[in-house]
Amino acid sequence: MQAIYNIAEICARHNIKDAVLSPGSRCAPLTLAFVRHSKIRAITITDERSAAFIAMGKAMVNKKASVLLCTSGTAALNYGPAIAESYYQQIPLLILTADRPPEWIDQQDGQTIRQDNIFGRHVKKSYTLPADHNNTDAQWQIERIVSEAILAAHEYPQGPVHINIPLREPLYSAQEIVFDKTVKVIEKIEAQPILSPELLQQLKNELSTYTKILLVSGQTDASEELKTNVGSFIHSNTIPLVADVITNLQDLPSAITQHDIFLPVCNQEELKPELLITFGKSVISKNLKQFLRKHKPVAHWHIQEAGEVADTFQSLTRIIPVKPEYLLKALVNVTDTSNYYEHWKKVDDKSRELKESYFNAANIHNEFSCFYHLIKMLPNNSLIHLANSMPVRYANLIGITERSGVKVFANRGTSGIDGVISTAYGTALASSDPVIVFTGDLSFFYDRNAFWNNYRPANLKVIVFNNHGGGIFRIIDGPNKQPELDEYFETKQPLNAKSLANEYGINYYSCTSLNELAIAKDFLNDQQTAILEIETDSKTNADFFCRFKEFMKEKF
Amino acid sequence: MQAIYNIAEICARHNIKDAVLSPGSRCAPLTLAFVRHSKIRAITITDERSAAFIAMGKAMVNKKASVLLCTSGTAALNYGPAIAESYYQQIPLLILTADRPPEWIDQQDGQTIRQDNIFGRHVKKSYTLPADHNNTDAQWQIERIVSEAILAAHEYPQGPVHINIPLREPLYSAQEIVFDKTVKVIEKIEAQPILSPELLQQLKNELSTYTKILLVSGQTDASEELKTNVGSFIHSNTIPLVADVITNLQDLPSAITQHDIFLPVCNQEELKPELLITFGKSVISKNLKQFLRKHKPVAHWHIQEAGEVADTFQSLTRIIPVKPEYLLKALVNVTDTSNYYEHWKKVDDKSRELKESYFNAANIHNEFSCFYHLIKMLPNNSLIHLANSMPVRYANLIGITERSGVKVFANRGTSGIDGVISTAYGTALASSDPVIVFTGDLSFFYDRNAFWNNYRPANLKVIVFNNHGGGIFRIIDGPNKQPELDEYFETKQPLNAKSLANEYGINYYSCTSLNELAIAKDFLNDQQTAILEIETDSKTNADFFCRFKEFMKEKF
Repeated sequence: MQAIYNIAEICARHNIKDAVLSPGSRCAPLTLAFVRHSKIRAITITDERSAAFIAMGKAMVNKKASVLLCTSGTAALNYGPAIAESYYQQIPLLILTADRPPEWIDQQDGQTIRQDNIFGRHVKKSYTLPADHNNTDAQWQIERIVSEAILAAHEYPQGPVHINIPLREPLYSAQEIVFDKTVKVIEKIEAQPILSPELLQQLKNELSTYTKILLVSGQTDASEELKTNVGSFIHSNTIPLVADVITNLQDLPSAITQHDIFLPVCNQEELKPELLITFGKSVISKNLKQFLRKHKPVAHWHIQEAGEVADTFQSLTRIIPVKPEYLLKALVNVTDTSNYYEHWKKVDDKSRELKESYFNAANIHNEFSCFYHLIKMLPNNSLIHLANSMPVRYANLIGITERSGVKVFANRGTSGIDGVISTAYGTALASSDPVIVFTGDLSFFYDRNAFWNNYRPANLKVIVFNNHGGGIFRIIDGPNKQPELDEYFETKQPLNAKSLANEYGINYYSCTSLNELAIAKDFLNDQQTAILEIETDSKTNADFFCRFKEFMKEKF
Repeated sequence: MQAIYNIAEICARHNIKDAVLSPGSRCAPLTLAFVRHSKIRAITITDERSAAFIAMGKAMVNKKASVLLCTSGTAALNYGPAIAESYYQQIPLLILTADRPPEWIDQQDGQTIRQDNIFGRHVKKSYTLPADHNNTDAQWQIERIVSEAILAAHEYPQGPVHINIPLREPLYSAQEIVFDKTVKVIEKIEAQPILSPELLQQLKNELSTYTKILLVSGQTDASEELKTNVGSFIHSNTIPLVADVITNLQDLPSAITQHDIFLPVCNQEELKPELLITFGKSVISKNLKQFLRKHKPVAHWHIQEAGEVADTFQSLTRIIPVKPEYLLKALVNVTDTSNYYEHWKKVDDKSRELKESYFNAANIHNEFSCFYHLIKMLPNNSLIHLANSMPVRYANLIGITERSGVKVFANRGTSGIDGVISTAYGTALASSDPVIVFTGDLSFFYDRNAFWNNYRPANLKVIVFNNHGGGIFRIIDGPNKQPELDEYFETKQPLNAKSLANEYGINYYSCTSLNELAIAKDFLNDQQTAILEIETDSKTNADFFCRFKEFMKEKF
C-alpha cells in the first residue's frame, strides 16, 4: 500500500491542508494515511452529502483544494450535489473514491457500482488508478496522476477533480505507515496572460469612443488587488459598476447596488449601455439580466483568463483572456463617461432613500424587514453565507454595503437549496472569523445533517427564517395562483429549529417579532455555535414583499 | 404544454399509480399534471435524496414503476444513490427531471447543470425530450419516448429509466389541464422464453449424472409460483437449497438457512457440490461466497431470463436464459441426491440447535440477542426491511423461518447505509401490511429526512439499534486494531431517536435491557408510525458476537 499512502504525502507537498473523510472499510488505507499525516487536518463526517459541502466550504476559505475521501458504492453519489456546485462555482476539490478492484464490478458484490467517471461532466478531470501497484511504472503512474489532478483542480477555472482508487485486500497492514519523502511531485509555475502594447492601445482607443460604458461584475471572491483595480478603473473613467451582493465589490465607493430595486421601475432607456464590460461568475439579479438582454449593448467585452465563457446577457462580442485585475488596471484614465454614470447614480441614490424610508416606516414583523435590520448588525470582517431562494434575493435588494471586511458567499454555481449549512460549516471550520448564515427553513432542514458530526465551530452563527415552507412560491407569479400552492409548491413543514438545537447541543435564540430582534446582538456575540430562529408568517411575508414593490413603483 | 401534460396520461395508461414529486419551479407543468390526474396518487417530498428512495420503496410493493419528478439543477443529483440502488436491485423507476432549455446550459443561469444523461451508467436508458413541441412530429416523439421509457423500466431486468425534460416559460397557463384521451400509447405483450424438448431432455440427462447438486438462491421477491416450483424441484430431487434471509425462500421446508453459522466451522469437503445451480440477485453470506469460490463445482448453471449475468462464485459455466420458475418446474423428479442433502441437513440442524441453546442461555443485553428475540415476535404477513451493515448480517445468521407471509427487503443492490428508512417509508405508504425496519443508528440518522414530510404511514414500525456509531468496525478484523477505531471508523455519534420521534410527532418506545424487550409487543401493535429504540453498548455487542462465533467453533 506504499503507493496509496504516498497520496497523502503528495497532497501535503502540494500544500493541501484539509481532508474530509467519511467512514468506510474499502477506503481504510487512505483514511489512515490522511489521519496520520502530520501536515493534514483530517475530520470525519458520516453523511457524505454533507461531507462534500463541508469540504467545499473549507476550500472556499483556504483557496486550496480540500481532499474528500469515501468508501466504495453509493457514498460517492452522495457527493454529487456538492461536486456540481463546486464545478460551477469553481472551487477546487480533490475527490478520492475507494473502489473494489475492476474484476469485481457488476459481480453482485456489496458496495460495488460503476465508479469510473461517476461524476460525469461535473468534474474537470476523472482518473482511475491501477489496482496493482507493485511495479515501478504503476507507482510512477499513480504519483503522476495525483500531481496532475491537484494541478488541474487549481488551474483556472478551479474545480473538482476525481480519482477513483481500486484497492485489493488486505486493506490493513501490521506495519507503521511511513511516508515516502522521495515521492515524485510535479509542480507547475504560475504564468500570467498579458496583452501586447498594441492590443492594449487598441482597446483604449475603442474604449474612448464610447460614452456609455457599463461594468458588471458577476460573483467573485474579490482579492484586494481586484478591488483596488476595479476601483481605479471605475473612478478614473467615471464608469458605473453594477455589483450584486455576491460580487464582494459592493463596498467600493460609487458602486451601483440597488439595481434590483430600480430596474423594474425606472426609465431603462437612460441606462442602456453602448459598451458592456463584464467579469466574474454568475449574476443574481434577474432584473439586471432582463434589462441587459432587452437593451443589448453595441459591444460586450468579457474578461476571463481561461475556460469556457458564458454569454449570460446574449450580447457577447469579445472575449479578453486575461485577468480582470490586470486589464482594468491597464485601462485607467482612458475616458470619462460621467454623464452616463450620473443616470445610474441618480436612480441608485433614490432607491436607497426610498428603501430606507420604507423600512423605517414599516413595523410589521416579516422576514424582509428582519433581513434589513440584521444586515446593519453584521460584525466587520465576517463571512456571510446567503442561502438560495429568498435569502440571496433579499440581500441583493438590500445590499451589504456598510460593513468593512465582509465576505459574502452563496452557492450560486447551481443555486440549489441543498448544502448551504454544510458549506458554511466548512468555512467556519477553516476560518477564525465570524461566519453568519442566512437561510430559510427548507434549506436549513434539508441539510440538517450538517450538524451531525463531532465538530462545533464556535464562530458559526446560523439565522433561520422559518416560515414553515418554501415561501418563494407565494411570491412567484404562477404557483401563487394554483390551488396546489400550499401542498405541492410551498410544501408546508412544521419543524422548528429549537428541537434541532437541543438535539445537537447548540445554543438557540428565538425571535417572533421585530421588537425581539435586539436579541440578535447576544446571538452574534455568543461564544459557541448558535442558531437564531426567526419565525414569520408566509402570507405576511408575501404581502409585505409585494407592497414594497408597489411602493417603489408608486414613488419612483 | 399539452404534450407535457400528456406524460401523466401516458403513465396512467401504462398503469403507473404512484408519483413522488419534489417542489420546484421549472417542473411546475408536470407537478400540476401528476397532481391533477385522477388515476395517479401524487405525494410531495422536499429532500430529493429521500424522495427517490421512497419512490423505490413504493415500486417494490407495486411491482410497477413509480414516477419521480424534480426541478432543474442539483435536485436530480440527490436522486443518485437511490437510482444506483434501484439499478442493481432491479426496481423500475421513471425519473423525470425538468430542465432549462438547451440553449441556457452553461450560461450561468440559476439551477442549470448538465442534466443530459446525468445518471451515467446507473440507468437502463436516458432520454432528453425536445424543448419545442408545437409540431406534431415532436409530439409523436415525446409520446413515443415516454412509452419506450416505461416499457424499458419494466422489461427484465427491471430498473430506472430517465427522461430529461427541457421546459420553456411560460410554465403556467390560465387554462384548465385537460388530458388528451387520444394520446398514443405503445404497449408490449409479454413473451416467455422456453427451451426445446430436446434441450430440456439434455439438461435432465446431465442433471442425473451428478450426485452432488446444490441450489443457491440470490435475492428474490419470491412469487408464489417461484416458491412452489423451487419447492417441487428440491423436494422431488432431494437437492439442498441454500437460502439467505433475502431470498424470501427461507420458509420452504428443508431450506438450508444456517449456512452463515456452520460454513466457517464445519467440514466443508462434505458439502462441496459437483453441480451448482443458481438464480436470483445478490447473496449476502460472505461465508457462502468464500466456500463456493474455494470449492469450485465442476459445472455452474445460472438461470436468468435476460440481461448481464454476474459470475459471483467465479465458477459459472452455463447461462440458461429462462425464468427459474419455468426451468425448475421442468426439472422435477429427475434425480435423487439425498446423500448429499443429508450432509447439508445435518450441519443445518446442528447449527440451529446450538444457536437456540446459546441464545437461551445468554442473558447479556446486546443487539444480536435482541435481534434473535425480536425476529420471533414478528407478525405474520409483515414486510421486513433490513438495513445494511449489521442488521442484514444478524438476520442472516438467525434466519427468518418461522413466520408465514413475511417478505424480506434489503437494499442489497449496492448495500449502502443510505436510504433504508425512506425505502421502508415508501413500502409502508404503498402497502397496508405492517412494515418493520431493523436499522442501526448510522443508517437511521443518515436518512432521518425520511420523516421530513407530511405523511405518516400507520403501519410503519422502525426498530433502531443504537450503539452510537458504526459498530461493525469493532467486529471487522483490521479497523478494530487501529488507534483510529473510535474516531475515524466507528465515528461515535451521540444522538438518540427519542428527540427525533418528539420532533416529528412519532410514537416512541425505548428498551435498554433484555427484560424490557417485552415492550416490543406494544410497539408492534401501535396504531401509528412508531419507533423502538434499543440502546446497546458497542463493546458488549462486539464481545458477544465474537463469543458466539467461538462457541460455534468449539461446540461444532
